[in-house]
Amino acid sequence: MSKNVLVLPGDGIGPEIVAQAVRVLDLVNTQFNLSITHESALVGGSAYDETGSPLPEATLTKAKAADAILLGAVGGPKWDGLDMSVRPEKGLLGLRSNLALFANLRPAILYPQLADASSLKPEIVAGLDILIVRELTGGIYFGQPRGIRTLENGERQGFNTYVYSESEIRRIARSAFEAARQRGKRVCSIDKSNVLEVTVLWKEVMEEVAKEYPDVELTHMLVDNAAMQLVRAPKQFDVMVTGNMFGDILSDAAAMLTGSIGMLPSASLNAEGRGMYEPCHGSAPDIAGQGIANPLATILSVAMMLRYSLDAKEAADAIEAAVSRVLDQGLRTADIASQDCETVTTQAMGDAVLAAL
Amino acid sequence: MSKNVLVLPGDGIGPEIVAQAVRVLDLVNTQFNLSITHESALVGGSAYDETGSPLPEATLTKAKAADAILLGAVGGPKWDGLDMSVRPEKGLLGLRSNLALFANLRPAILYPQLADASSLKPEIVAGLDILIVRELTGGIYFGQPRGIRTLENGERQGFNTYVYSESEIRRIARSAFEAARQRGKRVCSIDKSNVLEVTVLWKEVMEEVAKEYPDVELTHMLVDNAAMQLVRAPKQFDVMVTGNMFGDILSDAAAMLTGSIGMLPSASLNAEGRGMYEPCHGSAPDIAGQGIANPLATILSVAMMLRYSLDAKEAADAIEAAVSRVLDQGLRTADIASQDCETVTTQAMGDAVLAAL
Ligand SMILES: CC(C)[C@H](C(=O)O)[C@@H](O)C(=O)O
Ligand SMILES: CC(C)[C@H](C(=O)O)[C@@H](O)C(=O)O
Repeated sequence: MSKNVLVLPGDGIGPEIVAQAVRVLDLVNTQFNLSITHESALVGGSAYDETGSPLPEATLTKAKAADAILLGAVGGPKWDGLDMSVRPEKGLLGLRSNLALFANLRPAILYPQLADASSLKPEIVAGLDILIVRELTGGIYFGQPRGIRTLENGERQGFNTYVYSESEIRRIARSAFEAARQRGKRVCSIDKSNVLEVTVLWKEVMEEVAKEYPDVELTHMLVDNAAMQLVRAPKQFDVMVTGNMFGDILSDAAAMLTGSIGMLPSASLNAEGRGMYEPCHGSAPDIAGQGIANPLATILSVAMMLRYSLDAKEAADAIEAAVSRVLDQGLRTADIASQDCETVTTQAMGDAVLAAL
Repeated sequence: MSKNVLVLPGDGIGPEIVAQAVRVLDLVNTQFNLSITHESALVGGSAYDETGSPLPEATLTKAKAADAILLGAVGGPKWDGLDMSVRPEKGLLGLRSNLALFANLRPAILYPQLADASSLKPEIVAGLDILIVRELTGGIYFGQPRGIRTLENGERQGFNTYVYSESEIRRIARSAFEAARQRGKRVCSIDKSNVLEVTVLWKEVMEEVAKEYPDVELTHMLVDNAAMQLVRAPKQFDVMVTGNMFGDILSDAAAMLTGSIGMLPSASLNAEGRGMYEPCHGSAPDIAGQGIANPLATILSVAMMLRYSLDAKEAADAIEAAVSRVLDQGLRTADIASQDCETVTTQAMGDAVLAAL
């Protein structure tokens, strides 16, 4: 049976990096006889420019029907002045929420070939391999009520609601424990339970779910301490699980510890394991159109997609091995450039991965 | 006219480090003829143990009357099981809120003598000097409604409210711009304006207040990017201004960049410049009572207190110079211990600062 992938290039460097990733997908599709088909659709700022909406109905319909989604990135200064309701980010948030992609898996891995790229001392980050499991369809990102109102005294007041129910916490807890079982068997849950009631419930439900996973160790850490510990001694972590907002902040900090965020893929999964795959980095409008962006995070997102949603583990392994080989060959895009290595374009990096396959 | 300081040792290592800081205060009081008197009161877990409240009425009354407050730290595992309403942290939050200490100044400075202590590469952090201005009496820490309720379907739901009014944002903006005028004249305001309405208002008001300070440059950064930039290139920042929750996370990350959080003081000021001064670090229950905690952050908090609230700039300068001299002498407490330096106790470190004065 054929599987269908929806490709959403998005904005900024999105189209350039996705183009290389699709070439890789096409090649493994042939090599491994995967019967994967794909089509493209608009999302983000480019969708707004064309249709007036960052998530056109046609895109959402295709997304719901697809077996998996490959996304580039959305957003850019061009759309900063727009009303929040039609900003590029709403396209991304709308996909997450409409497809119930509640489990966001963000690995922060240091490639040994790129150890120098980190701003941290080598001994602090060598061998780093953390998985951040971020809740993606709830919390303060989606909580109601929200908005800006005018108070009786005439001044304006902005407000958002941070909210989680037991069932939302329970399902992301399970995602974290399941993931930990495949790895180091340790989950650290991040909260601010000394101040925020919503995270008191979070912590309680984590404890409850932990009983179903006696082989996995659960610890808790306050979010401010977690931000410190990521800087001080990141290798202490195996799997970190947290809500939408804390996850946004901590996963970016963790990714940057590697110094090579241009290498990091991510997966956003729903209860059936269907998912959206995208690089951890953003749309980098400052370098868009120059052909110098790093396509490897997107190519590695294809590998994650093959593994988690398309049941093609061998093709995934092959892509990851090819990327590693290309790094061994000393090829680097500008973001991870280093003295003794050759700096190559987006296209040349794609060529090299294809050749290595 | 005599000035009165309220000393709140608190929990964990609080009493030990505050004892040394008070010795320093007493000495400069005599040396510089400052007419400062001080008395102590209970706060946090130790106050709860004694009185059933983490912020007894007597303490609050004294705090309101004092010209300045010196706090050690609150909290510890002993009180983790308590209901949120009487946890040690409520003592701290109650002081902040009742005294309207809305402007929290948290410097992240790398002492050249301690450059090795950082987990970051020397070239990334050498000369680091950031000031984080955190709003301290509003935002999600104090927003209503809040709690844990049971939904119609029987499951529990936790909720908190992230809220800021224009006037709250305006006053913290002014604190940040005023501080920047005394420094590098650059303010970076941190928000999540691509998702949260409350921070859309935050960003707008920052722009508005910036017009009153044409000599100070204002830029904006999303909180996830700020967490990355602190890891990647922290020296790009001069003053960062942000809300209570983001400020909690980012200021701890920034402090940890220095590798010597045991050195960092903080000030929490109200509209009249009265304030509470405390080390950035916590109550460190794991090492409490061993006499090995670093008293320097608390001693430097005394210096901040003298400068900002007690109009005694020279005494403040003298304390800071004395601390620097003690570091030059190669004395280190365990948290900042290094091979070629002598590791000393809390008391011995206090002795050394007194001698250097
Ligand atoms: C673009 C933005 C809405 C998004 C988020 O905050 O979730 C991004 O930062 C991310 O982490 O995927
Ligand atoms: C103890 C806790 C309530 C407090 C906070 O979150 O504000 C602390 O982390 C701080 O930063 O001063």
